Amino acid sequence: MGRIVMKFGGTSMAGSERIRRVANIVRRQQAGQNGDWHEVAVVVSAMAGETDRLVTFCREANPLYDPAEYDVVVASGEQVTAGLLAMTLQALGCPARSWLGWQLPVHTDSAHAKARIEGLDSDALLASMASGVVAVIPGFQGLSDDGRITTLGRGGSDTSAVAVAAAIGAERCDIYTDVDGVYTTDPRIVAKARKLKFVTYEEMLELASVGSKVLQTRSVSLAMKEGVRVQVLSSFIDDDATPADEIPGTMIVSDHELEGLDMERQLITGIAADKNEAKIILTRVPDRPGAVATIFGPLAAASINVDMIIQNVGRDKGETDVTFTVPGADLLRAQTLLEAQKEAIGFNRIITDAKVAKVSVVGVGMRSHAGVAALMFRSLADRGINIQAISTSEIKISVLIDEDETELAVRVLHSAYELDAVD
Amino acid sequence: MGRIVMKFGGTSMAGSERIRRVANIVRRQQAGQNGDWHEVAVVVSAMAGETDRLVTFCREANPLYDPAEYDVVVASGEQVTAGLLAMTLQALGCPARSWLGWQLPVHTDSAHAKARIEGLDSDALLASMASGVVAVIPGFQGLSDDGRITTLGRGGSDTSAVAVAAAIGAERCDIYTDVDGVYTTDPRIVAKARKLKFVTYEEMLELASVGSKVLQTRSVSLAMKEGVRVQVLSSFIDDDATPADEIPGTMIVSDHELEGLDMERQLITGIAADKNEAKIILTRVPDRPGAVATIFGPLAAASINVDMIIQNVGRDKGETDVTFTVPGADLLRAQTLLEAQKEAIGFNRIITDAKVAKVSVVGVGMRSHAGVAALMFRSLADRGINIQAISTSEIKISVLIDEDETELAVRVLHSAYELDAVD
Repeated sequence: MGRIVMKFGGTSMAGSERIRRVANIVRRQQAGQNGDWHEVAVVVSAMAGETDRLVTFCREANPLYDPAEYDVVVASGEQVTAGLLAMTLQALGCPARSWLGWQLPVHTDSAHAKARIEGLDSDALLASMASGVVAVIPGFQGLSDDGRITTLGRGGSDTSAVAVAAAIGAERCDIYTDVDGVYTTDPRIVAKARKLKFVTYEEMLELASVGSKVLQTRSVSLAMKEGVRVQVLSSFIDDDATPADEIPGTMIVSDHELEGLDMERQLITGIAADKNEAKIILTRVPDRPGAVATIFGPLAAASINVDMIIQNVGRDKGETDVTFTVPGADLLRAQTLLEAQKEAIGFNRIITDAKVAKVSVVGVGMRSHAGVAALMFRSLADRGINIQAISTSEIKISVLIDEDETELAVRVLHSAYELDAVD
Repeated sequence: MGRIVMKFGGTSMAGSERIRRVANIVRRQQAGQNGDWHEVAVVVSAMAGETDRLVTFCREANPLYDPAEYDVVVASGEQVTAGLLAMTLQALGCPARSWLGWQLPVHTDSAHAKARIEGLDSDALLASMASGVVAVIPGFQGLSDDGRITTLGRGGSDTSAVAVAAAIGAERCDIYTDVDGVYTTDPRIVAKARKLKFVTYEEMLELASVGSKVLQTRSVSLAMKEGVRVQVLSSFIDDDATPADEIPGTMIVSDHELEGLDMERQLITGIAADKNEAKIILTRVPDRPGAVATIFGPLAAASINVDMIIQNVGRDKGETDVTFTVPGADLLRAQTLLEAQKEAIGFNRIITDAKVAKVSVVGVGMRSHAGVAALMFRSLADRGINIQAISTSEIKISVLIDEDETELAVRVLHSAYELDAVD
């Protein structure tokens, strides 16, 4: 007997028929095999589309809505699916009850609409689970110290699931999604993409931050911090499929654990692409101390995340061109802020380009191997793909390219690093 | 300065535009006139149609749903409108916050889906209201002793409003509905129906129980018990109308208060009609002690409310026909139960008729006047309307007639008791 946390997203919870499929998966997980039953906690999202509907109501009510009241409204979506899944499990003969964020409670800070989980009282929960009752927990929601509902920000249910798994010492946190695992790259772009059996927390973080939207980044950070084993698998399986334990998904583990599990690992784990980037070039910025701070200070103050930054040597002495990227959604706001600071910064022109993409190769293996970057640059150059910017981390190399060349670049790199599946 | 509770139903909360109208009414009530502001608590229903949508989900999840989980699901509707109204008030510059049932809390018993309010902690609420913050409270919901969400049953928000008014010692509980008060009868049937300035709790109870669905019966009982003055008025008024205090609705008061307020009162307050009745006749029931118990015992056990009962002298000695009414929705169930008891009861035939209506004249004045019933029977006889059954209470006389004659009967009685408005 072990404890398992299972998390189902909005697509899996969209309507009575799908909730029944989820209930069947949960029931089979609880029953286990050969009498080896599990204590199960299920974390659920709102029905697909419901949170958007509620957010629209909030915007109509007050464009500058109070985030505390926003949380009251949007937390209702997960409350509904939690109650419905508990009922549906009961209909299958599986004892179940819902535990709302304020009931456990899931303690968070008071940063409404983007709260962070601080802890979770698990005594009552564990007692109930030990008696054979499946715990159904709405994701995304918590309780502030002053007794008000909080929410964790969009996609927060993954983080809720990991937090529950950490609090109850679950042996595994299974995240059921509409994909069946983490792939070497987007299978819609590369037909030969392979599903990974294992991926490390760090790799998953890099893959998530560059466009593989399988898991919310915060949930991966939390899992890494708390040492929670996370498995990504598909909720769209046959009702008569083998128990969840045996469906091969992708397990997210620590570096250390990986060494014992996956000796035959490739150098590179995956290729990710992100088209939600926009490039800004400020020309002829004075090349003096503090110039960069006048550019990026106002952007940081406006919570605009700047990613890649390159400072080119200018054509004229004492001047330099500064190139950087921001999320595409923030481009207009960033441009407006920078124009307002034109005199303070002292640039000549602002050039923007939303038609760029960031393509990254990710893998813990590159730490110990030279030549990974060189292969990337050469492979792209051979196909005539121009690199506009480069950024690197310990386990990732990213390049900024023309958006139209995204798919080509991903395919070229997938082959170059020998990630293609062998038929 | 006084305290006012305002309650808005689902039609008034259906969508952002209507919520904005409600917010305007609340803001004007709070501001008052000549600097005489009010402490205001607002109790809200879910958006029209929302509770039905949620109940449908519950039925799909599990036809025999757990009422505790049902409450988790359906309470979300009021949670959403409470948050939205608080935001909308803030957008109008009116400080506001929501207080959910579990936050106050509204203490109830544990009879999920039909819980009864036991009390309400008002300290934090009163402190917040005294500081000028409008309290927005979702109706219909409460908290059981074991910390779970409860709901009060359909239409429970009226009861929530009265309970809040009692707990905070409000000078008035204003129930905003889609009608602008209580009328002498349904204005759709009798064009000359008059709006009543005052009606007593007892009259309102009788009018509610016979088909004037202006207020939930339980809310009127609670108001009577707690001595809460309830006003019924319309939420569909112009945005620029006079403050709510001055809109003439109908005030529900005690007998005692009425005497001082309405000297010129008519003998009869109103005429009500209810088509949701069905008649059952059991023929040739043995006329012996205990026979009636064998009929009504099983119905009571099945929670079927029997209303009018008549025992006709049978044609044959030692036998009698028993006629009674049940809610139309329960007719089939009642019939099945009785057929199963046919031998035990010993009746000959069961005759049912769903095409009947109960028409009632209601008024505290009839207590002190003879001849009220006689006038009713004579007026109906003059128009050839056959009376199938009669029941009376201290302030009400009801007759059962053919459903097709309902409107005619109401018009005849409205004139006979001189209730018609004078042009």
